[in-house]
Amino acid sequence: MRAVLVTDHQVRFDAEYSAHSRNDCVEVDVIQAGVCETDLQLIRGYMGFEGVLGHEFIGIARSGQFAGERVVGEINCACRTCPTCEAGLPTHCPNRTVIGILNHDGAFADTVWVPEENLHAVPDSVDDDNAVFTEPIAAAFQIPFQLDLSGFQSPVVLGDGRLGNLCAQVIAAHGKSPLVVGKHVQKLERLKKLGIATQLLDDVEEKRIADLVVDCTGSPFGLLTAFQICVPRGTIVMKSTFAGETGPNLAPHVIDEFTMVGSRCGPFAQAIDALARMQISVSDLITARYALEDSITALETAQKKDQLKVILDVQN
Amino acid sequence: MRAVLVTDHQVRFDAEYSAHSRNDCVEVDVIQAGVCETDLQLIRGYMGFEGVLGHEFIGIARSGQFAGERVVGEINCACRTCPTCEAGLPTHCPNRTVIGILNHDGAFADTVWVPEENLHAVPDSVDDDNAVFTEPIAAAFQIPFQLDLSGFQSPVVLGDGRLGNLCAQVIAAHGKSPLVVGKHVQKLERLKKLGIATQLLDDVEEKRIADLVVDCTGSPFGLLTAFQICVPRGTIVMKSTFAGETGPNLAPHVIDEFTMVGSRCGPFAQAIDALARMQISVSDLITARYALEDSITALETAQKKDQLKVILDVQN
Repeated sequence: MRAVLVTDHQVRFDAEYSAHSRNDCVEVDVIQAGVCETDLQLIRGYMGFEGVLGHEFIGIARSGQFAGERVVGEINCACRTCPTCEAGLPTHCPNRTVIGILNHDGAFADTVWVPEENLHAVPDSVDDDNAVFTEPIAAAFQIPFQLDLSGFQSPVVLGDGRLGNLCAQVIAAHGKSPLVVGKHVQKLERLKKLGIATQLLDDVEEKRIADLVVDCTGSPFGLLTAFQICVPRGTIVMKSTFAGETGPNLAPHVIDEFTMVGSRCGPFAQAIDALARMQISVSDLITARYALEDSITALETAQKKDQLKVILDVQN
Repeated sequence: MRAVLVTDHQVRFDAEYSAHSRNDCVEVDVIQAGVCETDLQLIRGYMGFEGVLGHEFIGIARSGQFAGERVVGEINCACRTCPTCEAGLPTHCPNRTVIGILNHDGAFADTVWVPEENLHAVPDSVDDDNAVFTEPIAAAFQIPFQLDLSGFQSPVVLGDGRLGNLCAQVIAAHGKSPLVVGKHVQKLERLKKLGIATQLLDDVEEKRIADLVVDCTGSPFGLLTAFQICVPRGTIVMKSTFAGETGPNLAPHVIDEFTMVGSRCGPFAQAIDALARMQISVSDLITARYALEDSITALETAQKKDQLKVILDVQN
């Protein structure tokens, strides 16, 4: 089959990849897939990943309870038997594979293998261009899952990219008025259209403006800005992971007694429901789309500052 | 007066230092002072500090409500008028000086100037060798002030040094049974004598053993060990600050969805009370003591692996 692979820190398109089929999984024919910052980090060596990239997708299940239906899939494939799974934390299963990220071929391919329990049927009212955002929207919904947002008065989302946009919308959907601080006028304009307050980073004058900062900068040193704008004893949510050995000195974290919350994958059911109720708007987020054969160009495009979501159309 | 100064990243003893008197402070004649890891970091350039070192001390107040009495002093000198102070967070006052750390001469000197509201009288039952530990014990008490320890089942203190020892005792005083993981057999033996469980770092086999980790390693990369032993969604308390630009990559923080809590200065009243009730034992922690004139040797000694608390006897 066709697939986009990382091997030896190089990404390449393979027209005749011999896929590793998985007996414990449902084969899903990928309709389209989205490019995420994590894909770009994996290419740079994050996790030492080798295999087929891609963890944001919508496809059609070939078998099982959803056979023939459009589905999206949670990416953590847990063993379901270890103490961590039994404690109700399958996304943290130490034996897990992660689709397109850890020991599990991903969705930049004709087919992806997904455990049946990870699949969610997509309602007819949610089209492919919306459904492909389920995974990153779920990641944004992980924030209110972990934190009671009602306790915060001045949430700030740092970063106006793909994830920052979705996190701001999810916070707004919870009755809060987030401020998105970013560097890109056009990306901030898109948020303004949704009624979300924005500010250019250079225009942030008063330093300590946030009691909650969600760092979606996509840079390990975005945290330094979070440290500057967060009030003492405030909360900083970290959503991004990076390749490399180091991050910033954490002295401000101790001095200002911040609470830093790591936040990763989130609830798919809520994400699909939010899309079906049109609570989250993604129609404005797709800035480029490519055929699977053009995936190398697609990945290069996704790194450009003016891009938001780049889509791979697998089934043309 | 005599004083121990940091200037240009060099530490030196000055027999005739012209002290900066402070009209808004009480002059305190220092009896003795303790050397803290932060002092060693300040010499390495942390905070860019220049001035007299020393923030753990007991002395005799020359004036004010405690005139002639033995006192200890909180180190954050707040403006008491800004919004942060009015919000009840004077230790986070943006206009604060910090004794021996930030724009305020410290206690490795004959005299230290302390705001009267920062002073606490020391009961007769608490001798000088105990009272000099008030500041670091208060820092340990900041942990239960920030976190409800009753929610944790398996707290681990990483590091068997001065602060690790006190944090473990404070956690134990709150009815929990901490495990101290360290590298030094003799230091762990001191904790065992207090009934606290210990383990050599090399002997830690099962990886995810803690739902709460207090990082007292005194190294920016001690956090990597915390990441390894903490269960997913566990809590990591960070107590130490360091000179330098970088720290570890925080990807595990995001992947395992840890909550990292920065923790600094704590409640003096609780610390003094714990000493008076002999709830915290410090008698075994003083491993060396020097006259103020020998402070350079004292600071070198404090860096040695076999040392716990090094005391400067200012009044001989």
